[in-house]
Amino acid sequence: MRYAVIGTGAIGGYYGAKLVQSGQEVHFLLHSDYHHVMEHGLQVNSCDGSFHLDKPLVYASTADMPQCDVVLVGLKSVNNHLLPTLLPPLLKKDTLVILIQNGLGLEDDLQQQMPDLRLAAGLAFICSAKTQPGTVDHQCYGYINIGNYSCPDQHIVDQVVTHFNAAGIDAHSVEYHEARWKKAVWNMPFNGMTVALNTQTDLLLANPATRQLIYSQMLEVIHAAQACRVENIDESFADKMIYNTEHMTPYSPSMKLDYEHHRPMEIDYLYTRPLLMARQAGCPMPKLEMLEAELRFLEK
Amino acid sequence: MRYAVIGTGAIGGYYGAKLVQSGQEVHFLLHSDYHHVMEHGLQVNSCDGSFHLDKPLVYASTADMPQCDVVLVGLKSVNNHLLPTLLPPLLKKDTLVILIQNGLGLEDDLQQQMPDLRLAAGLAFICSAKTQPGTVDHQCYGYINIGNYSCPDQHIVDQVVTHFNAAGIDAHSVEYHEARWKKAVWNMPFNGMTVALNTQTDLLLANPATRQLIYSQMLEVIHAAQACRVENIDESFADKMIYNTEHMTPYSPSMKLDYEHHRPMEIDYLYTRPLLMARQAGCPMPKLEMLEAELRFLEK
Repeated sequence: MRYAVIGTGAIGGYYGAKLVQSGQEVHFLLHSDYHHVMEHGLQVNSCDGSFHLDKPLVYASTADMPQCDVVLVGLKSVNNHLLPTLLPPLLKKDTLVILIQNGLGLEDDLQQQMPDLRLAAGLAFICSAKTQPGTVDHQCYGYINIGNYSCPDQHIVDQVVTHFNAAGIDAHSVEYHEARWKKAVWNMPFNGMTVALNTQTDLLLANPATRQLIYSQMLEVIHAAQACRVENIDESFADKMIYNTEHMTPYSPSMKLDYEHHRPMEIDYLYTRPLLMARQAGCPMPKLEMLEAELRFLEK
Repeated sequence: MRYAVIGTGAIGGYYGAKLVQSGQEVHFLLHSDYHHVMEHGLQVNSCDGSFHLDKPLVYASTADMPQCDVVLVGLKSVNNHLLPTLLPPLLKKDTLVILIQNGLGLEDDLQQQMPDLRLAAGLAFICSAKTQPGTVDHQCYGYINIGNYSCPDQHIVDQVVTHFNAAGIDAHSVEYHEARWKKAVWNMPFNGMTVALNTQTDLLLANPATRQLIYSQMLEVIHAAQACRVENIDESFADKMIYNTEHMTPYSPSMKLDYEHHRPMEIDYLYTRPLLMARQAGCPMPKLEMLEAELRFLEK
């Protein structure tokens, strides 16, 4: 099976490099780092053992890339409008495209633009960052859940899960809607609140007022998920997320890093879209609506 | 009639000095500025005409002050626990105490501690600040509404209103509950949001997302007021407040100034108490609950 990685950054770069290391054929699309990685290869500094790819298969344009069986999309979702242009050269009839991105509604939107595409969601639980050209720093965690959105052949999805596990990545096949909403339970409170209050996960939980706020925001997402008929998430999931986060290394989520580095924040798919889905299901999320407004103010 | 001013700052200093200028006898309690004002008097720089009081009647302790007919309290509400100690030397049987402070529940709390006290609320619509020792800068506005809380003799309240007007201050007698809640409609969104987003009133209204947020926070207060049986406030009041604020000078509310100067913020009476009243009336204010939590985080 032949893999492509679109967006060779903290996420795409890490998972792609791990697959190469385990013997898979992976073709990497790069943008700003293309010349650097051509010359110097790809470096992964990882808590699980660092390694270097001397001669990864790198490209500056998908037009130069071969057709692939699986495309891993690690772009920021603010660039998803580029996918209908970027993807076609890579596609065979049965190519599986996995959006390893945060948010809700990503697959819906892309499917509408490309109705024949076979889509899955990748939910990455990982602390990693691209710290300099051609270098991914992987601090901790790394497991990935893959939820089939529109691939009629679940076998291909399972095959990818097998490849990830063979590459030393803990991967599981999960139910798509439940997986995306569950990730939102963590993402929606923590990504925005660390930006709004210029802080990290640990301090938000150490203060009783913001701890309670984070918890109530999690309940908003859980109730909205239930209203959207995703019923396998109950309130105890919020307790679990609080507990897990408390036992994590103090953490700046991706939106906080984007804000600090003056990159666009993924407000659309992380907030605007889920808020719309919740309202349409008759279950608005007022505190997260407020957070969205604060982020819209701060992004200016 | 003899007046006392407790808390000779931006509010107490301004109104007290205006009363002196119009011929009233006013006794001022000062704290940090006592020696300065003893020596140099009290300066009011005002958009309506600046003036100086050469020899105001100033005191460092209420124990040295005479009994008065009216006490104007201009303290920050974070210091209200001092009132049961500060007030008694000033009190005759029928002394009227006017709390010129922001928030809800102020009179309830003080009345519980001093059941015989005759209380009223002063709602000041004024942009003023104490910029240096003994100096009040009055930038604009200045009108005050006085709402009788527990004074059996409305005549005294009306007398005070007459004195304020004679001093060139636009003053009105108003219904207590309606007046406090109406002020909260403006105060709760703008005081906290200017702190949370480190901004001023004009920029909050210029951004469509925060403008909508401010509006929805105002509706939360209006609905809570209605649930608390204060029924003379309808949704159009929010439109009016937005319109008025848009036509005001860009403004940093008092909580923003407190935060900038590392003084304690009046979160208890501006947020915690009204939020409790709203919840008890079955009409929680989720966006303002979130704002309270953000302020609790920021005050650390």
